[in-house]
Amino acid sequence: LSTLLSQFLSSTYATIVILKMMLMSPLTSYFCLTRKDKKLVRIDPDVERVRRCHQNDLENIIPFVVISLLYALTAPELSAALLHFCLFASSRVFHTVAYIGAQPQSSRGLSLIVGMLVTFSMFYRVLSKVFLL
Amino acid sequence: LSTLLSQFLSSTYATIVILKMMLMSPLTSYFCLTRKDKKLVRIDPDVERVRRCHQNDLENIIPFVVISLLYALTAPELSAALLHFCLFASSRVFHTVAYIGAQPQSSRGLSLIVGMLVTFSMFYRVLSKVFLL
Amino acid sequence: LSTLLSQFLSSTYATIVILKMMLMSPLTSYFCLTRKDKKLVRIDPDVERVRRCHQNDLENIIPFVVISLLYALTAPELSAALLHFCLFASSRVFHTVAYIGAQPQSSRGLSLIVGMLVTFSMFYRVLSKVFLL
Repeated sequence: LSTLLSQFLSSTYATIVILKMMLMSPLTSYFCLTRKDKKLVRIDPDVERVRRCHQNDLENIIPFVVISLLYALTAPELSAALLHFCLFASSRVFHTVAYIGAQPQSSRGLSLIVGMLVTFSMFYRVLSKVFLL
Repeated sequence: LSTLLSQFLSSTYATIVILKMMLMSPLTSYFCLTRKDKKLVRIDPDVERVRRCHQNDLENIIPFVVISLLYALTAPELSAALLHFCLFASSRVFHTVAYIGAQPQSSRGLSLIVGMLVTFSMFYRVLSKVFLL
Repeated sequence: LSTLLSQFLSSTYATIVILKMMLMSPLTSYFCLTRKDKKLVRIDPDVERVRRCHQNDLENIIPFVVISLLYALTAPELSAALLHFCLFASSRVFHTVAYIGAQPQSSRGLSLIVGMLVTFSMFYRVLSKVFLL
């Protein structure tokens, strides 16, 4: 039962973070449109920032989706799983807000590191289960 | 049974669109090779177009693969599921053809938007199932 | 049983290659930090190389993860599955080492092609199962 609930939770959070990632595309278009009519430069710093943020999402959210599904199969404690998923989802939302809002780089870096630590913690759990069982 | 068949369909279409995405790599190499011996510029517009098209595939096809699997688990009607998958696959193929063939941007934009609407429709379905059940 | 074991193997190898992919992020940061204090250029060749390598990982490893799971569901022979997964994982590790170490392009290209051939072989197997069953 715990495995089933974890898988349900992991699917829900996977849906949420991927939805967030998908929303970067319209956001890029919006920035492209609102920024482009001012001047005719091809490389606008705001558009480039959204683009890099999208790329960073791809690099971090996709591994999370795969590993969270495998992590859910290792029958973790529900509270631990929920903590992992919540922490990751909020760190990614915070990361996007800090990136787009051009906050100081430290806040963006902090949320990036929190997200990666959560992912590595799930990697550790999955690999230790696989190699010790 | 409907869930099983949907999952089978979702796996088949996931295979097809990912195969299409994988084929972008040899295509990029092909453009790199055929375009490079003419002149020695590092940034060739054709090669850059294939590259951006590949990146766009990554950003749209991977969310589709994940969400289509979850969508198949919500036991949708078979006809609705088939419509979603077919529409997405054809919109992506059309998008690539329009992108590589340097068609007017409107046809490429249209296929991009169709693909994204299909994905968002599956997101809506999955999230409404999750939060109302 | 063979299917179950294959899925277990596919999950394990998926974990390994995704972990390798995740480790590219800290590596990029490391190169950014060690290279940046020397001079103030924005585009450093080493950093760009790590970045392109990471992008190449995204484009190849994610299709592998999805297709290897589907491949495991087609109940392949265990030895064949193990051969596919091992070959892919080692080709990607070799690719990264060759890329970062700035080895001659042929060794990097060879490992890239080996990885893609393995993926296409799994695609072939999955599609032939789907369309002939």
